[in-house]
Amino acid sequence: MESMTFVLFGATGDLAKRKIYPALFNLYMDKMMPEAISIIGLGRREWSHETLQAHVKEAVHTYSDHEADSESMESFLQNFRYCSLNVTDPEDYFKLEDLMLQREEELNIVQNRLFYLSVAPKFFEVIAANIKESGLSQTNGWKRLIIEKPFGNDLETARELNRNLSEAFNEEEIFRIDHYLGKPMIQNLETLEFANPVLQSLWNNQYISNVQITASETVGVEKRAGYYDQSGAVRDMLQNHMLQMLMMTAMHVPQKISPEQIREVKKNVMEALEPLQEDTLEEQVVRGQYTRGDIDGEEVNAYTEETGVSASSQNDTFVAAKLNINNSFWQGVPFYLRTGKRLAQKSTRIVIEFKNPLKGLYDQEEEQTSPNLLTIEINPNESITLQINSKNLLRDGKIEPVNINFSANDKHLPQAYELLIYDAMLGDPTFFAHWDEVELSWKWVQPILDAFKQNTVPLHLYEAGTMGPDAAEQLVEKDGFKWW
Amino acid sequence: MESMTFVLFGATGDLAKRKIYPALFNLYMDKMMPEAISIIGLGRREWSHETLQAHVKEAVHTYSDHEADSESMESFLQNFRYCSLNVTDPEDYFKLEDLMLQREEELNIVQNRLFYLSVAPKFFEVIAANIKESGLSQTNGWKRLIIEKPFGNDLETARELNRNLSEAFNEEEIFRIDHYLGKPMIQNLETLEFANPVLQSLWNNQYISNVQITASETVGVEKRAGYYDQSGAVRDMLQNHMLQMLMMTAMHVPQKISPEQIREVKKNVMEALEPLQEDTLEEQVVRGQYTRGDIDGEEVNAYTEETGVSASSQNDTFVAAKLNINNSFWQGVPFYLRTGKRLAQKSTRIVIEFKNPLKGLYDQEEEQTSPNLLTIEINPNESITLQINSKNLLRDGKIEPVNINFSANDKHLPQAYELLIYDAMLGDPTFFAHWDEVELSWKWVQPILDAFKQNTVPLHLYEAGTMGPDAAEQLVEKDGFKWW
Repeated sequence: MESMTFVLFGATGDLAKRKIYPALFNLYMDKMMPEAISIIGLGRREWSHETLQAHVKEAVHTYSDHEADSESMESFLQNFRYCSLNVTDPEDYFKLEDLMLQREEELNIVQNRLFYLSVAPKFFEVIAANIKESGLSQTNGWKRLIIEKPFGNDLETARELNRNLSEAFNEEEIFRIDHYLGKPMIQNLETLEFANPVLQSLWNNQYISNVQITASETVGVEKRAGYYDQSGAVRDMLQNHMLQMLMMTAMHVPQKISPEQIREVKKNVMEALEPLQEDTLEEQVVRGQYTRGDIDGEEVNAYTEETGVSASSQNDTFVAAKLNINNSFWQGVPFYLRTGKRLAQKSTRIVIEFKNPLKGLYDQEEEQTSPNLLTIEINPNESITLQINSKNLLRDGKIEPVNINFSANDKHLPQAYELLIYDAMLGDPTFFAHWDEVELSWKWVQPILDAFKQNTVPLHLYEAGTMGPDAAEQLVEKDGFKWW
Repeated sequence: MESMTFVLFGATGDLAKRKIYPALFNLYMDKMMPEAISIIGLGRREWSHETLQAHVKEAVHTYSDHEADSESMESFLQNFRYCSLNVTDPEDYFKLEDLMLQREEELNIVQNRLFYLSVAPKFFEVIAANIKESGLSQTNGWKRLIIEKPFGNDLETARELNRNLSEAFNEEEIFRIDHYLGKPMIQNLETLEFANPVLQSLWNNQYISNVQITASETVGVEKRAGYYDQSGAVRDMLQNHMLQMLMMTAMHVPQKISPEQIREVKKNVMEALEPLQEDTLEEQVVRGQYTRGDIDGEEVNAYTEETGVSASSQNDTFVAAKLNINNSFWQGVPFYLRTGKRLAQKSTRIVIEFKNPLKGLYDQEEEQTSPNLLTIEINPNESITLQINSKNLLRDGKIEPVNINFSANDKHLPQAYELLIYDAMLGDPTFFAHWDEVELSWKWVQPILDAFKQNTVPLHLYEAGTMGPDAAEQLVEKDGFKWW
C-alpha cells in the first residue's frame, strides 16, 4: 500500500474515538497499513500532539479487541500529530498545510492525501471548499475524501451537496461510507450470488417468490432525538442502508467482476425500481411510530414521551415498503423492506423465499411442504441458512423443514470501519455508496418523504416490543406471504 | 394396522437374533404394531414356545436400545409361539397350519399372513412351493412374502428364482429387502429431491456435472469368506445396494407421489442406463482386490491370505464403475460408483457436483472458485451438506468454500429393519426392491460378471487402508474430475 497522509477532521469527536482509532490500530497490528503514514488529527480544541496520542491510546484500549503490547502501541502513536483548526477559517488550512508538508518531508513520502471528514454534515461543503482554496488538494500524489451519511436531507439538498463537493473532488475521489456496506456478510453477498452456480441459477423470478429485508432494532431514539426527530426511519435507514442491501441482493453478475461493474449493476437495480405514485403510495408504504410497551420485560416510553421529542411528533420510527423491480430478473417478485426502532428483536437479515410449485405433490393432506428459504443473517450474528424439506428421520417419516446452516464462529470478525478505511486507503470503491446510487435512492424515497410531510398516509402506532404495526403484516399478507 | 400372523422362517438364526427381534420389539414399544399379532417362529431345532420366548428376550436385551420394562417385555413375548419345521418336509407345514389356525382363533384375527424367509436363499423356492402346496397361503385375508438378497446369482438364476416364487406369490405380495433402502437418509432422498423446489430445479444435466456414490468399508472379508469369495463386490454391493442408490438419486418427480410412481421412475432410470459393451468395458469398470496394508495403524492381511480364501483368488473386493444414463435429464452426466472392503474409511455417501461455469469471473488468479457440492451422508452419520463459495469473513476477503450443513443428531434413529418390517406389515412397497429393478440390475451387471469370470479385464491390486486402486482415480480423472 502506498504511503499517505491521513487527515482526520473531528479527531476529538465520538466517532473517531469509538470507531476510527480502534480501526486504524487493528489495521496497524495486522500490517494492513502503509509502512510510512502521517496521521494528522484536527479539532477546534487546543491539543498538543501528546494529548492526541494519549487520547488515541485510551480509545484503543477501550474499544479495540486487539491485544496492544506497549512497543507496538508506541510506534503506532508515533504516526499521529495534532493541529487545531477552525473548519471555517481559511487561515487555519495553511497551518495544516505546513504540518502536512513537514511530515511528508520527514517521512519522505509522496503527497497522497486522504481527508476523512468525521464531522457534522453541515461542515462537509465548507471543508471541501477550504481544502481546495488552500491548495491542500493540489498534490503530486492522489487525493481522496471520506464522508459519511447523511448525504443531504432529501433529493434537492443531496444534489446541492454533491455539486459543491464535486468542485473540490471528483466522483472517483469521494468515498461515501454506508457502514452497512462494511459489514462482512453484506460484503459476502457479491460472492454468494456471483460465485455459486447453484445460487446464481436460482436468482430470478422463475424460482424466487419474494425477498424480505429486515433491519430491526430494540433500542429507541436514545440520545439522538434532535437528529432523529428531524430524520425518521426513511432518512435514517431506508434511503441508505436498506436500499443498499436491496441493491446488493438484486444485482446480477456481469461478465467480469470489477468495482466499476458492481457500481453499474447496482445502478441498474435502482433504475429499474418502479417509482411510487402519490395516489397508491399507501398500498406500498407503511409508516409507524412506537407507543409504550415492553422490551425484554422492561416497560419503555412511547416515542412521543422520549426526551427531546415533541409530544405531537408524527415522526416515523418504523417504515415498511413493498418495492417492485421492473427488469427481466425480478418482474413479479416483490421486495419487502422493513426497519424500525423498539421492535421485538435486534436483527438485520435478508430472506429469499423460493416459489413452492410442489403443493399437492403428495396425496396426504398432512404432507404439505414449506417453501425453501435462504436466510442471510447480517447482524448480530453472521450466518447463511437454507431451509429445505426433509423427512423426519425418526420413524414417523413426516416431511418437515430443516435448516442447513453455516455460521461464522470467528469471534474477531473485522469491524465495518476497518474494512472500509482499508479499502479507502487502497482506493477500492466497491463497498462505498456512489453518487448514482445516492441520487437514485433519494429520488425513489422522495414521494415517501413528501407523503409523510403532508400527512397523506396514516401514522400506524405500534406497541414497543412488537414487530411493528399490523399494517406491515397486511402489506405482505395481501400478497399471500408472511414475514419470516 | 391390521391384525396378522407373522411367520418367521429361520427363527433360531443370526439375523433373527440381531435384527428382527430387536426391530419387532422397538415397533412394539413405539405402538407401531397391530393390537393383535401372532408371531410364529420356525426352525429345525426342537424348541418349546418358552425356549423361543427366552431367546427373543435375550436378543432384545442384547441388541435393542429401547428400555425394556418387565411388564412390556412379558406382554411382547406372549405373542410368540414356536414350531419346529424341516423346510423341505411338506408334512411339517400342516403342523404349522394347525398352530396358525389355533392362534388365529384364540386371537380372533383375520388370516392375514406375512411369511418372512430369514433363511439361506437356496431354501426360498422350496419354502414358497410348500407354503402354496400346503394351502397356508389360501387365506381369507392377505398373504405376503419377505425375502432378502441375494436374489439369484446372475441374471439367469435371478429369473429362475423369480419364476418359481411367482408360482406362489404375486409381485405385489413379494417384499424384497435391500436394507440400504431402509436407511433413513436413503428414504429421505425422495423428499429431498421431490419436495424442494431449489433442489428439484437443479436436478439435471444443465446444472450437475457428475454424481459420485461411494460405499466404502474398512473391514475385510471377516468370517464370510465362503460366501464372499463366490460373490465379490459386484454381487455383494454393486448389483443391489449401489444401483438402488443410483436409482434413488437419479429418479425424477412424477405428478403425484405414490409407491407405484416411485417404482415407475426407478425403473425408468434402469431402462435408460447405457449397457456396457464387452470391448470397452475396461474403460468404465475397475476391478480391485486388497493386498496387505494398514487399517487404523494395524497391519492387516491381503485378501488372498484371509482364512477361507484361495491363495490364487481373483475375486473382486473393490469395484468402481462409470455409468451413463441416456435420458434427457442425465445425458452427459457421468455417475461414478465405487465400493470396496479394506478401504481407508467407513462411509456411504452421495456427492452431487454442480457445474462451475464461473471460472474466470474474477480477474485475479487466486480468486478461483470451487464447485458447489451437495453431499448426502448416509452412513455412519446422517447429514446433508452444501458446499458454497463464501468470502472469508476475516479481513483478507479471499473466496473459499464453506459448508452449510444439517446433521441428524438424534441418537436413536430407527434401524433399517424396523422401517422395512413396519412397511411390509403395512403393505407399503415403496422401499423394497421390485422385480423390474432386480432384473434390470442383473442385466446391467451381467457383462461385468462375464468379464471378471473370463478375466478379460485386469485385477488391480490396492493396499489395504487406501481408497482403492489408482485405476479408480484415473476413471474420474480422465473426465476432468476427482473423487470427493
